[in-house]
Amino acid sequence: MLRPTHNGDRYELTSATAMPQAAGFLWNQKMMIQITCRGYATAQFMQPEPAKYAHAPNLEAKTFMQPEQNYYAHHPGRFFYVKDEETGELFSAPYEPVRTPVDSYAFSVGKSDIAWTIEHLGIRIELNLSLPAREVVELWSLRVTNLSGRKRKISVYPYFPIGYMSWMNQSGEYRPDLGGVVASSVTPYQKVADYFKQKDFKDKTYFLCEHAPDAWDVRQSAFEGEGGLHYPCAVGAELLTGSDARYETPTAAVQYRLALAEGELRDYRFLFGPAFDDNEIRAMRDKYLSADAFKAAQDEYAAYVASGRGCLRIQTPDADLDNFVNHWLPRQVFYHGDVNRLSTDPQTRNYLQDNMGMSFIKPSVMRAAFLHALSQQEASGAMPDGILLVEGAELKYINQVPHTDHCVWLPVALKVYLDETGDYDILHEDVIGKDSGVALTVSERVSSAMDWLLQARDKRGLSYIAQGDWCDPMNMVGYKGRGVSGWLTVATAYALNLWAEICETTGASSSLAESAKHFRAGAHAVNRAANEHFWDGEWFARGITDDDVTFGIRDDKEGRIWLNPQAWAILGGAASDSQRASMMAQVEQQLYTPYGVQMFAPPFSAMRDDVGRVTQKHPGSAENGAVYNHAAVFYIYSLYAAGEGERAYDLLRRMLPGPSEADYLQRGQLPVFIPNYYRGAWREYPRTAGRSSQLFNTGTVSWVYLCFVEGLCGLKGDADGLTIQPQLPKDWDGIKVERQFRHATFNVFIQRADVEEIQVWCDGNRLTEARITGIVAGGAYAVEVLIPR
Amino acid sequence: MLRPTHNGDRYELTSATAMPQAAGFLWNQKMMIQITCRGYATAQFMQPEPAKYAHAPNLEAKTFMQPEQNYYAHHPGRFFYVKDEETGELFSAPYEPVRTPVDSYAFSVGKSDIAWTIEHLGIRIELNLSLPAREVVELWSLRVTNLSGRKRKISVYPYFPIGYMSWMNQSGEYRPDLGGVVASSVTPYQKVADYFKQKDFKDKTYFLCEHAPDAWDVRQSAFEGEGGLHYPCAVGAELLTGSDARYETPTAAVQYRLALAEGELRDYRFLFGPAFDDNEIRAMRDKYLSADAFKAAQDEYAAYVASGRGCLRIQTPDADLDNFVNHWLPRQVFYHGDVNRLSTDPQTRNYLQDNMGMSFIKPSVMRAAFLHALSQQEASGAMPDGILLVEGAELKYINQVPHTDHCVWLPVALKVYLDETGDYDILHEDVIGKDSGVALTVSERVSSAMDWLLQARDKRGLSYIAQGDWCDPMNMVGYKGRGVSGWLTVATAYALNLWAEICETTGASSSLAESAKHFRAGAHAVNRAANEHFWDGEWFARGITDDDVTFGIRDDKEGRIWLNPQAWAILGGAASDSQRASMMAQVEQQLYTPYGVQMFAPPFSAMRDDVGRVTQKHPGSAENGAVYNHAAVFYIYSLYAAGEGERAYDLLRRMLPGPSEADYLQRGQLPVFIPNYYRGAWREYPRTAGRSSQLFNTGTVSWVYLCFVEGLCGLKGDADGLTIQPQLPKDWDGIKVERQFRHATFNVFIQRADVEEIQVWCDGNRLTEARITGIVAGGAYAVEVLIPR
Repeated sequence: MLRPTHNGDRYELTSATAMPQAAGFLWNQKMMIQITCRGYATAQFMQPEPAKYAHAPNLEAKTFMQPEQNYYAHHPGRFFYVKDEETGELFSAPYEPVRTPVDSYAFSVGKSDIAWTIEHLGIRIELNLSLPAREVVELWSLRVTNLSGRKRKISVYPYFPIGYMSWMNQSGEYRPDLGGVVASSVTPYQKVADYFKQKDFKDKTYFLCEHAPDAWDVRQSAFEGEGGLHYPCAVGAELLTGSDARYETPTAAVQYRLALAEGELRDYRFLFGPAFDDNEIRAMRDKYLSADAFKAAQDEYAAYVASGRGCLRIQTPDADLDNFVNHWLPRQVFYHGDVNRLSTDPQTRNYLQDNMGMSFIKPSVMRAAFLHALSQQEASGAMPDGILLVEGAELKYINQVPHTDHCVWLPVALKVYLDETGDYDILHEDVIGKDSGVALTVSERVSSAMDWLLQARDKRGLSYIAQGDWCDPMNMVGYKGRGVSGWLTVATAYALNLWAEICETTGASSSLAESAKHFRAGAHAVNRAANEHFWDGEWFARGITDDDVTFGIRDDKEGRIWLNPQAWAILGGAASDSQRASMMAQVEQQLYTPYGVQMFAPPFSAMRDDVGRVTQKHPGSAENGAVYNHAAVFYIYSLYAAGEGERAYDLLRRMLPGPSEADYLQRGQLPVFIPNYYRGAWREYPRTAGRSSQLFNTGTVSWVYLCFVEGLCGLKGDADGLTIQPQLPKDWDGIKVERQFRHATFNVFIQRADVEEIQVWCDGNRLTEARITGIVAGGAYAVEVLIPR
Repeated sequence: MLRPTHNGDRYELTSATAMPQAAGFLWNQKMMIQITCRGYATAQFMQPEPAKYAHAPNLEAKTFMQPEQNYYAHHPGRFFYVKDEETGELFSAPYEPVRTPVDSYAFSVGKSDIAWTIEHLGIRIELNLSLPAREVVELWSLRVTNLSGRKRKISVYPYFPIGYMSWMNQSGEYRPDLGGVVASSVTPYQKVADYFKQKDFKDKTYFLCEHAPDAWDVRQSAFEGEGGLHYPCAVGAELLTGSDARYETPTAAVQYRLALAEGELRDYRFLFGPAFDDNEIRAMRDKYLSADAFKAAQDEYAAYVASGRGCLRIQTPDADLDNFVNHWLPRQVFYHGDVNRLSTDPQTRNYLQDNMGMSFIKPSVMRAAFLHALSQQEASGAMPDGILLVEGAELKYINQVPHTDHCVWLPVALKVYLDETGDYDILHEDVIGKDSGVALTVSERVSSAMDWLLQARDKRGLSYIAQGDWCDPMNMVGYKGRGVSGWLTVATAYALNLWAEICETTGASSSLAESAKHFRAGAHAVNRAANEHFWDGEWFARGITDDDVTFGIRDDKEGRIWLNPQAWAILGGAASDSQRASMMAQVEQQLYTPYGVQMFAPPFSAMRDDVGRVTQKHPGSAENGAVYNHAAVFYIYSLYAAGEGERAYDLLRRMLPGPSEADYLQRGQLPVFIPNYYRGAWREYPRTAGRSSQLFNTGTVSWVYLCFVEGLCGLKGDADGLTIQPQLPKDWDGIKVERQFRHATFNVFIQRADVEEIQVWCDGNRLTEARITGIVAGGAYAVEVLIPR
């Protein structure tokens, strides 16, 4: 049974080999762990930059979180060897490193814990991983049960490799006083100034055992011997060797020798995490290492995750979809909004969209984030490439490359927040500039950003691209200062229109009404220019290079059609009805794959100097012709906006693995999150097309949520009401929806009926328009919606 | 038989498990490879910064070359699986990844090649690795012989993992047109400027086969399957799977299916290396991939290595020593002088000393390097922290941390060059400053450097340490600008005295004679200050911190006595005879270990804020109480200078592994190079003490060579002659020496005799002094030396 089975809010996989990269993840505001069904793990914690307490076996590069993690025998992980002392037979749970085919296997991903049940050699191993809600430590429980119907002698060896901690200082030993392994290191530094930045780092890694083990190994090489990880020499012997590590790679391996009666079970608990010193380790032991403390921490963590449950519960003909939308999607939205991808300098567009998702969960978080972002606006009106979240944070990696689109996201994110909350008061909030100290209102700042977009255009009225814009770093289209972006041009129009609409809505003051006119006129001019220079006959082009070469057009052999200009031309009004129809047909023909819609096609097979970095990415990878979900969801959103609910849902469903077994296997992922991309290049490389990046950091999810709330269910807010305009797939007769909105609950039953147009009944009364106003906080509304067959 | 056996200029190890890190290395001016007896390899090439063509399985940090390489199952290496097709039995040569105990094993390290012979299952595998003299490629030959006395069916699988090439783009496929595996990647970049730096990188890795294989795998995961490296699934099957890699980790695994008659043998050749494009790969194939081409390349490479043979051949009662001094030591000296550790910005002191060694091999190289270094002198007279060797090179890593000792090394290195060559003309060469454009003579520049040292002292006359000095980065002793260095103070006196001596020797001009007086007086003052502030009763202290705390003194619990101040106080004249005696006794008592003399003791166990980085290093590691050979050799050199030949040789011998089996095992190294350190902390951590760092980059070797030439053999040049003052160990009756000096050959026979003082006979005539003058280039001198018993 390769297909995952789900049970309420858990997903279960019954094979460790069918989808070897399938993983679950847990997080809190200080740490994150992603762990695969086979036991490989990637964990990081904040101090304040992301750091590790379990390392690779070599000196790893510091890098942003990579997609398609590459696992190998010595990759960090959490493993439990089990040896039959009478026969020498060995297996390991969850699966690595021994890789024995076992009698039964289940990997079970919950919203607030991850668990495995493995049965082999008449022994059942139950593993459970959870985190506390607020601190950095992994809580592991292990239950060993003798199922064999006879007495057994076995040894169980939890093995938590610690890896290459530091070239400067690494060591480790078993500490009877602390009841576990403590590995120590010093983060390398060469410059004096770095010492002061690093001296309070949590450079120790501990593995604490509730019950004292019978033996241990703390030196990786002593544990392995010549046996290798599939049968370590120390495991082959009667007892682990009791080794320490002195400037040698440390590990945490302990041994429990058990004599189990028929049916007997034993419970073990372990802590694994980083610490500054022994006192901190002792305190963590005291606080967490008991059955009661585990239970309390698990309850608290479950409550933490439940606090991000979102505003929507659906019941549709597609149970897999319901499960995802009701449980996993809001969880992923909450993750993004709550911890900003565990970064200290999120990209501005990501920061705005990740927090935008909180409009549906905890709107106050979005409100504060929006004000925080604006406080880092430059005097010119431009937004910086990243938003600094903590004292001392710096713009890193891609945030050192100038992009021109960040201002666009202000009204885009703000509009969603306003629709959900009606909190137009935010427009009048003062925001003090971080560098300038100048106080301006939100509306002044957004207007200033919109004016910046208007001036960042060339003589033709097209938006400069500089070294890149959103989600496709074509860093050499415009690095000489002349190249322009087709997407950014139509996106500028969208942003201007949104902002004009907001100004109109709240246009009590004449200055905002003036602004509305000004920006409407700007949007109109921008769209006219876009049509003049980018319309290629059947779709909009992607840009024009420094040397005046238009690309993303029918004559291009590679990168011929791009999704983003089409989606945003629909949203921003550049495209007429006939243009829309033509674009949609071309997108379907050229960009559709079974796994979603590609960002562009055909992928680049080699460097194109006047385009740049994206053309050097592997075909099918994130930015080179993949199904890049963040781009895809905007196309879906634009389809809903255009009333194309059937097309929209078709693509939305392709964004989720399954429900066919073949689809799961090809993507290699459980539907517990939406990855940032699926491999594209479906026509060129069908073998790998559809494969999940396994990276759950993505701006996609807040928009997917929006598509379900406002698109599929059609339950969208406005300044003082809730509009109702569902767009169900043709073959659905109806759905049930529970929608939280403005502190009221709406129980909505949408069904097809023999009606000419939509009919809405609220608490038994038919409404004159498909819109509910006068909503009372705390109220509950029973809504019946009839839609045409 | 765990002890390595040597045969002429080769070393042989007959076990893969006894000394698992034992390795050999090969290099040319563009690349380097270090490969262990078990098949793990670390290789780099210059483009112009060091780069790799075989990678770890994850994203590795870019770092300087680390000691004590940490190997693990997926570490890069070169492996050959052998499978019996009739029984399925498997082993791998040299040893990894299968780790089968084999019938016979030999790892044979030559000066210009590295070879293995393995016999198992009735099959002999002979492997040979060599490099061309000038290009970047590994030349591998494989011979398979059927020893089993019957027909055999086997498969042989060369497996050269390529690893994680790049997160931006990696792929690979078998290319029938090129006859091998080609993996492609793009070095990641984010900033436009980096594209232009990187666009010509050799981002492809190729593995070419002289004979087309029967099958292949180019995707690592397809090759391994669930089997793991110890029995890859693809190897378990009849044929490899023919996989490609698309944004997946590539590998090069090929299969030859052989039906071998009794006694039949087959020869295979392979190329492995980086390339820019297919044309380059094709050209390499055409040039190198044949038996004749291998032979020609091997001959040329052997000639290249032989060109670095050095000026000394000894025949002593210690055959191991002879082998090392005659073959391996000059080879390592040549490596350093010829390629500058394959760095583009060597530390100034390393650059000077590495090239200093070329005084004994190719003096013109040292001459040019000395002038090149001086051209980067600063206007103040100070020398920079690193010397830039190529256009566009930058000071990296430790070279960004200010050190105060670089000027010291100018006269230290120059004096050795002058003694060996008599080339005093160099002092009058003009050197144009790289930044200033100002022309100054060598003597003006060295005088300016000496004056810089004189002024870089505090009111007490002690030398500032700033953020560090040589070989012990105590980066926080003086970072506030006040701390001073005991070593640098006495080293300054040594440098000043050496320079004064050079000035005196060539003192025809009155200005140089004046300089001599000036610097002699300076040295005297410096030494007086050193005695006043650093003499601690039995040894010299290491320094005084910013906050006026003297350290390296008897009251210190850790870091109590440091080797460098003692050695250099002897060399520079700070120490009186009675001080010397006391220091030597204390060094022996506190710093001696079976593996040499520690740089200081006891090692620091924890951070000492006012000392800094060294105290955070692991006890026993390079800088924290290790047997740091670069420091040790100066102590040995000072002992020879003080006429303490017995003590000196004792320590010199400890610098080489063996000859006891226990010693080899403890150090874990073949005596084919001197590592930069052996683990120290012998009293605190006896288990790991003596372990070799396995890092062959070290300033040590030019000085070790000097100790043998000028110390042990006592054959030291001066301005116009060769002085003779051997210092043989007591239990040696005599030695034979062949010494090349000033283009003449000296065949020297030194023996103990019943003489009161040294007697020297040259070509049958007794000399009035122990010195040969009037040396005729091209001449051959038979020299007999009688020394007291």
